[in-house]
Amino acid sequence: MREEPEPTTGSGPDLELVEHQAARSRRYQSLGYRTKRVLLGPALSTAQLVHERISKRVALAVFSSDPISSTAYATEEMLLVLIAAGGAAIGLALPLAAGVAMLLLILVLSYRQVIAAYPQGGGAYMVTRDNLGNLMASVCASALLVDYVLTVAVSVSAGTAALASAVEPLRDYRVAISAAFILVLLLGNLRGVRESGRIFAVPTYVYIASLGGVICYGSYRVLSGLGPIQYTPEQTSELAGAGGQLAAVSLFLLLHAFAAGTTALTGVEAIADGVPAFRKPEARNAQRTLVAMALIMAFLFLGVTFLAIQLGARPFEGGHPTLVAQIAEHVLGSGIGRALFVFVQISTLFILVLAANTAFSGFPVLASFAAKDALMPRQLRKRGHRLVYSNGVIALAGGALFLVLAFRADVHALIPLYAIGVVTSFTLAQAGMTRRHLHLRQPGWRKGLVINGFGATVTLVVLVVITVTKFTHGAWMVVVAVPVLVWLLRRTQRAYGSEIAELKVEATQRLAPPKPRHEVVVLIEDLDQAALAALQYARQLNPLHLIALHVAVDPDRARELCALWTRVRIPVPLEVVDAPGRNLLATARAAVEELVRSDTEVTVVVPKRSFTGFWRRLLHDNSSAGLFKALGSLDGVNVTIVPFRLGRRARLRLVRSEA
Amino acid sequence: MREEPEPTTGSGPDLELVEHQAARSRRYQSLGYRTKRVLLGPALSTAQLVHERISKRVALAVFSSDPISSTAYATEEMLLVLIAAGGAAIGLALPLAAGVAMLLLILVLSYRQVIAAYPQGGGAYMVTRDNLGNLMASVCASALLVDYVLTVAVSVSAGTAALASAVEPLRDYRVAISAAFILVLLLGNLRGVRESGRIFAVPTYVYIASLGGVICYGSYRVLSGLGPIQYTPEQTSELAGAGGQLAAVSLFLLLHAFAAGTTALTGVEAIADGVPAFRKPEARNAQRTLVAMALIMAFLFLGVTFLAIQLGARPFEGGHPTLVAQIAEHVLGSGIGRALFVFVQISTLFILVLAANTAFSGFPVLASFAAKDALMPRQLRKRGHRLVYSNGVIALAGGALFLVLAFRADVHALIPLYAIGVVTSFTLAQAGMTRRHLHLRQPGWRKGLVINGFGATVTLVVLVVITVTKFTHGAWMVVVAVPVLVWLLRRTQRAYGSEIAELKVEATQRLAPPKPRHEVVVLIEDLDQAALAALQYARQLNPLHLIALHVAVDPDRARELCALWTRVRIPVPLEVVDAPGRNLLATARAAVEELVRSDTEVTVVVPKRSFTGFWRRLLHDNSSAGLFKALGSLDGVNVTIVPFRLGRRARLRLVRSEA
Repeated sequence: MREEPEPTTGSGPDLELVEHQAARSRRYQSLGYRTKRVLLGPALSTAQLVHERISKRVALAVFSSDPISSTAYATEEMLLVLIAAGGAAIGLALPLAAGVAMLLLILVLSYRQVIAAYPQGGGAYMVTRDNLGNLMASVCASALLVDYVLTVAVSVSAGTAALASAVEPLRDYRVAISAAFILVLLLGNLRGVRESGRIFAVPTYVYIASLGGVICYGSYRVLSGLGPIQYTPEQTSELAGAGGQLAAVSLFLLLHAFAAGTTALTGVEAIADGVPAFRKPEARNAQRTLVAMALIMAFLFLGVTFLAIQLGARPFEGGHPTLVAQIAEHVLGSGIGRALFVFVQISTLFILVLAANTAFSGFPVLASFAAKDALMPRQLRKRGHRLVYSNGVIALAGGALFLVLAFRADVHALIPLYAIGVVTSFTLAQAGMTRRHLHLRQPGWRKGLVINGFGATVTLVVLVVITVTKFTHGAWMVVVAVPVLVWLLRRTQRAYGSEIAELKVEATQRLAPPKPRHEVVVLIEDLDQAALAALQYARQLNPLHLIALHVAVDPDRARELCALWTRVRIPVPLEVVDAPGRNLLATARAAVEELVRSDTEVTVVVPKRSFTGFWRRLLHDNSSAGLFKALGSLDGVNVTIVPFRLGRRARLRLVRSEA
Repeated sequence: MREEPEPTTGSGPDLELVEHQAARSRRYQSLGYRTKRVLLGPALSTAQLVHERISKRVALAVFSSDPISSTAYATEEMLLVLIAAGGAAIGLALPLAAGVAMLLLILVLSYRQVIAAYPQGGGAYMVTRDNLGNLMASVCASALLVDYVLTVAVSVSAGTAALASAVEPLRDYRVAISAAFILVLLLGNLRGVRESGRIFAVPTYVYIASLGGVICYGSYRVLSGLGPIQYTPEQTSELAGAGGQLAAVSLFLLLHAFAAGTTALTGVEAIADGVPAFRKPEARNAQRTLVAMALIMAFLFLGVTFLAIQLGARPFEGGHPTLVAQIAEHVLGSGIGRALFVFVQISTLFILVLAANTAFSGFPVLASFAAKDALMPRQLRKRGHRLVYSNGVIALAGGALFLVLAFRADVHALIPLYAIGVVTSFTLAQAGMTRRHLHLRQPGWRKGLVINGFGATVTLVVLVVITVTKFTHGAWMVVVAVPVLVWLLRRTQRAYGSEIAELKVEATQRLAPPKPRHEVVVLIEDLDQAALAALQYARQLNPLHLIALHVAVDPDRARELCALWTRVRIPVPLEVVDAPGRNLLATARAAVEELVRSDTEVTVVVPKRSFTGFWRRLLHDNSSAGLFKALGSLDGVNVTIVPFRLGRRARLRLVRSEA
């Protein structure tokens, strides 16, 4: 959702810009690169990074798919908690849902402030970093990253459940289907799906219309006397929770159910993050869209909860069929209603997959921000083949795949982990805004202070409630994971910080003069044309000292080499180093190390025989690569590879001699 | 069995021998090397290659474990074929066994000639190469290599069967046990088992004594009226072959049974290969040992066959218990006899594993000979950590493991593949000797010609018989594998041949003078201390042209770099190459390629930031390694890595700033 500012390809003062034809650089393509081309299509040019602006109607659909899609499972999760206190406790769901809607209202008010203050977008991470400092920023980043991974896992699993509710035979394959969806999302996002494309608006509106239709038609039928859902005895045994009696309802249970309902709120921040994508005036359009989204969400969430209570719908232990599917099926009836029911389920699948897709645009951008602040590895900043932050995309898909496999694509099992991260980011963002109001005291800061201060307090309370009530159900994993991630991020930042300090060039620094001595060592395995080329190159360097060095791994060969050396009259002295342990690399390294002095530049020249074709490469152990690695890790030793290519000429000669 | 001549570590005319302490070279030890040290013990010095001489008594045991051990299964394989014509056909086993013994006699006579002609050892491969040329030599090598692999697979499987015949519960694990034996042999041989150690003489003599004892005591008991083995009805249903009636015995069946018996002959050539290991006079001692071995073998083979017929022993379908085990158990009876029976089985296991071990000394040496003749990859010539030809050892173990897994460690299934290779080598060796006699006409050549000519003819006939009769039972695999292997060997030889021609330096050749122009390009990613070090080094080379090159993967960074470049006043021009596809390697390669001219030496200098510690390395994509690979494959471009090490100083600084 968040877009990068437009890049400027202008040139600096000393800049001599050389254009190379793409055809030229295409000559060198590794196997990996060619695979990429086939899977992902041709590489996109950096200049193709464009910045699209979208209308409110499209924005609503694109940014709201995540929160709106959560209405497909939030009610069910709430009921699942309540049902523990007996079937009659279900009646409490409606006031709890209203409470979640209230929380949504508070968030909308708070985020309107964020939008006004940060029209350039950036979201909770930016707000936290600007106002609460680096440590809190890394907490926020960690919490959000965890939640993005959970968004993908939960949405894909819930989408699969919606599909399986309509097409029963698919139930046994939910893990495989969920994994397949993640892989499709991975591939699509590596290819660079246009996130703001209009096409993505369709599923959201179709879902709103179809679920809204079910709610309206269902309410009408309930008022016209539609009876509750009748479960068969077999079904009843598979229903979750105790019997029909109302047991004692504890406060803890109510808070737990409320916490389960808050999963509906994930993704609310997306609009605030994506302000620059709106048409002008961006901030106002974004604020209006935010309100529209909240109204739609509240309607759908409350509507589903209302119908569930009226129709006596109860969640199944295994999650199949889903609560929404039961309601839709009961309301729509058979005949043409059956077809409509399947349509509702498929539209649910679509919006859930779309919701997962929004995480695929959120996670890599957030990771690239964190990487820019040196909190995460540099590789996350690199735009890939198709201009997306490929490494972030892959990391997200990997994490989500892991969760789906570990939790067997079970929404009920994943939900307790969910929402903690996003509510943490809410709290931090509102706290950051509160601090900002106090600090800047811009016009209207008092009103903002009240709104954000209240928002911060409420979200903090909600965070505590969620963490405590869900702790034993799996939330502890997040409580462990986030601090570990924070530690990793801080560790990374320190590592980069010390490196930058060490590598930094001051404007006053000048290039040091060449060292007084230059020693060149040519490593010789055999006296062949490749060795001659390396010796010739070494003489080109015109060093103070030039020697050839042979590591005598095989004493017989060493003797042969010495004899040939004299016969060809090579004007470079040959030194033979005994290697009783036959360890070429360690011996060469020790011999070269002896030459290192602070006033001496040491160059080791290694002849490299390049063999073309798989066959020839198989017949040689590539000792030059090993030498390069062993010697390259020596302080103050420069390693030069002098290539000698074989194969083409050789083949010609062979053909001639055979003819 | 074959030993290398003693190496001389003498020095050539220009040789300046530098001794480096082992402690010094131990500093650089990769993870792989350290693992090797733990698994295999400390590296052995090349000077520790010693040449042991062994007495006839020890030699008999060491060289004969392979042929003598085959008496543990050869009779059973013969009976298994005969039984197809009914139980009564078993009686034909004795004349057939006598036929095999005759063949053994012919081989002994022939190989006495080989020993006389090649007292330096070398065996069939050397004889063939010297007298019949390269093509036949590669046929011989291929056939022998295949047979060595089969020796390991068959011996280990048969040893496991012998063990399982005594300890019934092990029957279900024969594949795992066989695989474990191969792995133990692999590890032992990589550690460098002293092949000629006296310790190896023990199992052979114990086996000869225990099986010989069973034969003598059994014959005595048979003469005293010991009745045939009584099979229970359940056992009878598991016996191989038809009922008791004598069906028509075809010539084909007889030849097939004979072919099965020839498996006893594998390994007969070992003494001829190992002549240099004997005490002086080597040739005579070897010839006498050969005769002793043949006598022992014939006695054991005929004895087992005689008792099998007398006691009506019949092979089981699954191979458990083995024929020899049935005989031993029946002859020795219960009580103390039972303990003796277990002892016989364990001694059988030991000699069979020892027989497999002889292949572990034969295969790598043969492969190293073939590699010296450029028929096989050069890596097979390299003495490993413990002075053995490790790559050959690993290849053999891999091949045998594959066979054991593919054939489920089933001796009956493996036998049809066996013996073709070794009989091929017999035929080629005798044919080679025949040619040699005709060519050299040394004293006594007429007698030798008759013996070897007759030997060649007989073994050729046997080869045809084996191939035809076993063809459909699995021999076809060998008939396919050997020509494929021959093709591979020839292909390898051609590849090396063309390389050697291309790389060869003539004694008249002189080192070319340096090229008139030297262009140096420094690849710059960032202007940091590492880049400064590279620029300083580049100036040391004092080239005609020196430029710095930056590939603009990220346009923003390129602009920053240019600005800093001007500010620091680097006296080297910076060229920025646009990389719209963000492909660093391909763009750098294309830019450098433009500089290549025949009169110009091009050096690309790449700064390399070396990070110590896992953590730091994780945070960086090692672009210098990629550049090295991409540029190193360009004709006429030399790549120099200038290292800059980070971490140690950085950590100190960090501690200070935190304090």
